[in-house]
Amino acid sequence: MEHDSAQLADARPRIALTVGDPAGIGPELVQVLLGEKALGQEVQLVVVGPEDLKPAGLRSLDEAESEVGGSATHLWCATEGSGRVAMGRAQADCGRTALAALRRGAELAQDGRVRALVTAPVCKEALHLAGEKVEGQTELLGRWAAAEACEMVAVAGNLRVMLLTRHLSLREALEGVRRADILERLQLFDSTLRAEGIRSPRLAVAGLNPHAGEGGLFGSEELEQIEPAVADARAAGLSVWGPISPDSVFLEAARGQWDGVLALYHDQGFIPLKLLSEGCGVTLLAGLPYRRLSPVHGTAFDIAGRGQADATNLRAAVLMAARGVIPGAAGQEGAPPAALKGVDCRSLPCT
Amino acid sequence: MEHDSAQLADARPRIALTVGDPAGIGPELVQVLLGEKALGQEVQLVVVGPEDLKPAGLRSLDEAESEVGGSATHLWCATEGSGRVAMGRAQADCGRTALAALRRGAELAQDGRVRALVTAPVCKEALHLAGEKVEGQTELLGRWAAAEACEMVAVAGNLRVMLLTRHLSLREALEGVRRADILERLQLFDSTLRAEGIRSPRLAVAGLNPHAGEGGLFGSEELEQIEPAVADARAAGLSVWGPISPDSVFLEAARGQWDGVLALYHDQGFIPLKLLSEGCGVTLLAGLPYRRLSPVHGTAFDIAGRGQADATNLRAAVLMAARGVIPGAAGQEGAPPAALKGVDCRSLPCT
Repeated sequence: MEHDSAQLADARPRIALTVGDPAGIGPELVQVLLGEKALGQEVQLVVVGPEDLKPAGLRSLDEAESEVGGSATHLWCATEGSGRVAMGRAQADCGRTALAALRRGAELAQDGRVRALVTAPVCKEALHLAGEKVEGQTELLGRWAAAEACEMVAVAGNLRVMLLTRHLSLREALEGVRRADILERLQLFDSTLRAEGIRSPRLAVAGLNPHAGEGGLFGSEELEQIEPAVADARAAGLSVWGPISPDSVFLEAARGQWDGVLALYHDQGFIPLKLLSEGCGVTLLAGLPYRRLSPVHGTAFDIAGRGQADATNLRAAVLMAARGVIPGAAGQEGAPPAALKGVDCRSLPCT
Repeated sequence: MEHDSAQLADARPRIALTVGDPAGIGPELVQVLLGEKALGQEVQLVVVGPEDLKPAGLRSLDEAESEVGGSATHLWCATEGSGRVAMGRAQADCGRTALAALRRGAELAQDGRVRALVTAPVCKEALHLAGEKVEGQTELLGRWAAAEACEMVAVAGNLRVMLLTRHLSLREALEGVRRADILERLQLFDSTLRAEGIRSPRLAVAGLNPHAGEGGLFGSEELEQIEPAVADARAAGLSVWGPISPDSVFLEAARGQWDGVLALYHDQGFIPLKLLSEGCGVTLLAGLPYRRLSPVHGTAFDIAGRGQADATNLRAAVLMAARGVIPGAAGQEGAPPAALKGVDCRSLPCT
């Protein structure tokens, strides 16, 4: 029995999970996941957070690593600060506690002691009160890893989307559709999906204009920027197709035709992502030297500490960290769309 | 038994159904529907097309109208031309035949002899060969009815979308976001849904920019054009909300929160429509003095006459013509979004 247990432990991927802001829903979601038997059979969590949040009996990561054949279901990695805080509001102490856990989680991932880092939500205001004037965790992780470019890959069902531009007006986003930037983003997307185990990711680039411009009939960006970028990417050995009509490419991806879609502006990506996420979206951060995933929700201060928070999203992030963002994709070969099955979504007219 | 049958006939709405281009899949789809028992219990079709396509035994509309208590399952309204043609290519004769059926179908609807007109697909090239240089049936129906403005309402599941702009480059579509045009479109949308039996349609207007501009942070169109247009529409008595974040409003609509969404550009509307249509989209033409619905597919010349065509779409159009585009909506009252149930999709972050 002990032997079986040890084998089980060996086979499971170790995933670091930070508790996030202790005044938010992070700690209670972590407790939920620690108690889930099915999850414990598939993943060994290394929860990173204050010692006083640790359930009794959980061993530390250091202890587990110093043993041969250790069989603990989950582990704890204690960081400074306390989890005994006033719930539901931004506090400097909580910001510092969240920062300490994040920093330690990033180190564990960077040092290869875990297969991935999953982060529970933090509060931007608390980070600011703690002296870090940042947009969020992504910015910190990128800075600590000295990453050149960090971009999110948002995952919802079969759909994996990277954005070319994000929080810009649509007018400014049009100006951002540039050959060199598209190429750079495609290369980052490609290397990120390769790191997820896909040998030659099949990437699609959405067009900008209706029907991807219909050969210049509605707009010139496809001819002047997007097509040349796709040609550049192919010349660099990437499996890229496009530009594809924006109203078809996400449906094609939802049907499994693409490993990733590069969307050119915020809503082109987030309209389909939100429709397909069914309230369960996960993002993978591209550009780091390790794998980091996060749920799309925030600290939910309004319900924090009341046992009402839903662990679906954080569980999905942990499972995706363990299984990869494309389950069963390891070693898959890129193939041209012509060889793929299913309805050709481009033939559906928009009347 | 005969009495029951006659009563059944009385209760069913009469729907005119044109055969479309005889070289396309229209005629065979019509035959499929004529043979469907369940459909015949709910709808009385008046198929409009050449006499030589009429199945034996079907009576004419004129005959049925001159009888009391007639009980025919379906009827035929013969128009000029022949259905015995070479399949799968554009021909002048076929264009003339399709035009004759469309014209007659429009007259039946205009004269109130049917509850709605449903049109099987035509071939633009065949119409041109027959001397009508038009974009399609919509343009002809609008011209014949001397309609001021005709616009499509595309329906997919719970989602009903009207577009502000259609086949323009995204850059040009930005210029089309104008207060007066938004108001005009909202009034057309409102009157169209009222004609479908909704007493006070709940309309939402999508924003143009990410998060609907976040108060001017990303773009000014919301403040300068869209909000004033919504205020104008409310002052005119319409139940309109918005601008709502584009990545949330379609999800809200899919969950039943809105009777209609005004999308500002082609892909903002067609990305969610195609994702939610599951291969079964129907459009309702707004601006005509009668109800006209159509399936979103074309003549499918490549498979015409082979018995491979799928009647799902045309059946959906016929049923929607009979039931209304919002089943069970007659007499429904408009209500503010705050009073509606379900997740607030705007709280889902886009990270």
